[in-house]
Amino acid sequence: MRIDIITVLPELLESPFSASILKRAIEANLVEVHFHNLRDYTTDNYKSIDDTQFGGGAGMVMMIEPIDKCISKLKAERQYDEVIYMTPDGKTLNQGMANHLSLKENIIILCGHYKGVDQRVRDQFITKEISIGDYVLSGGELGAAVLCDAVIRLIPGVLGNETSALTDSFQDNLLAPPIYTRPRDYKGWEVPELLFSGNHAKIEKWREEQAYQRTKDRRPDLLED
Amino acid sequence: MRIDIITVLPELLESPFSASILKRAIEANLVEVHFHNLRDYTTDNYKSIDDTQFGGGAGMVMMIEPIDKCISKLKAERQYDEVIYMTPDGKTLNQGMANHLSLKENIIILCGHYKGVDQRVRDQFITKEISIGDYVLSGGELGAAVLCDAVIRLIPGVLGNETSALTDSFQDNLLAPPIYTRPRDYKGWEVPELLFSGNHAKIEKWREEQAYQRTKDRRPDLLED
Repeated sequence: MRIDIITVLPELLESPFSASILKRAIEANLVEVHFHNLRDYTTDNYKSIDDTQFGGGAGMVMMIEPIDKCISKLKAERQYDEVIYMTPDGKTLNQGMANHLSLKENIIILCGHYKGVDQRVRDQFITKEISIGDYVLSGGELGAAVLCDAVIRLIPGVLGNETSALTDSFQDNLLAPPIYTRPRDYKGWEVPELLFSGNHAKIEKWREEQAYQRTKDRRPDLLED
Repeated sequence: MRIDIITVLPELLESPFSASILKRAIEANLVEVHFHNLRDYTTDNYKSIDDTQFGGGAGMVMMIEPIDKCISKLKAERQYDEVIYMTPDGKTLNQGMANHLSLKENIIILCGHYKGVDQRVRDQFITKEISIGDYVLSGGELGAAVLCDAVIRLIPGVLGNETSALTDSFQDNLLAPPIYTRPRDYKGWEVPELLFSGNHAKIEKWREEQAYQRTKDRRPDLLED
């Protein structure tokens, strides 16, 4: 899989892709991630990538030309499955979308900034608009990092333990059950006895019940789907 | 506002807090952000912070002791309004929660990793569990960065233009309307005429209609609240 991220702030993205699972996935050549600085695609001496809104109003708008130039260059080099724009009014990311995207070969992710991009960018170039949640961030960069993390960890071979991702929350529309590790007794707070019974069928049953109960208490909407 | 982030991967968090708006907010002393490496609170020679699950199963669990030590040290130094745990089964972050948290004085954010933390940590120390969305990430660090960004940009003085955050998506339960900037005509794709009319009342009305229509098309659930 290859991911091209178009941004005005490549420096913001550095550390999330240089640590932990994303780093390992990149080093193992399971995924290629390239950052493209929009300022490299500007045409004026000021390297302008934004301008004021037509019609007035607070906040700057990202201009179409540098974005067009960058996307066009990438598209001339290879075929892309999706050109994604990170925006709070996009389709809300969920685990199913992450699963789906993890099967793609080449994707472009455009990070919005300031008030967002000129609407014509969205009309002409974007194939999918994604939001990571119902809140506003100062730019699309963290959204892009979140999307990449959610997707890349699903690529076979990325997680050490192949079975690990399958027992995560949401994979079966249930939240994960409580988990415990050593010590068995910490300051008088004890781990449930049952987990030491050695009876695996009973432990599995308890976990399923706990997962169901937690989902019912916290996220009954997940059970309705 | 002071935010203490407890993590096993402080290096992952570096760049988001060293760029753009978060950087400026920190430099202007509008917010203090401190990273705490959990490995500094371990008691064994291996600096272990995780162990296998009691009862069996894939994935490692973060142990209670280092987390207890770190949180207790912080709590001895000052009063905290919230001790937040980032977890996919927490309450889903939205703009209202971000607004609310931006008024707090001191908060701790604990980043989960691996399969998550020992349940006793959640039972004993955590006052609020927050998810940034219905998907699983490789750790709570990106979630913490997203939460901080959503909250910090709302602190008065952080955004250059005070009115800017108020016209964002979600602040009035409506998505933002389309926006445009120069050039007026790009490859034959034109900006709507109305935005050049100079009639501000008409432009405002058009924007409201567009915002309403976009919300109705994309997120009818927002209109039901």
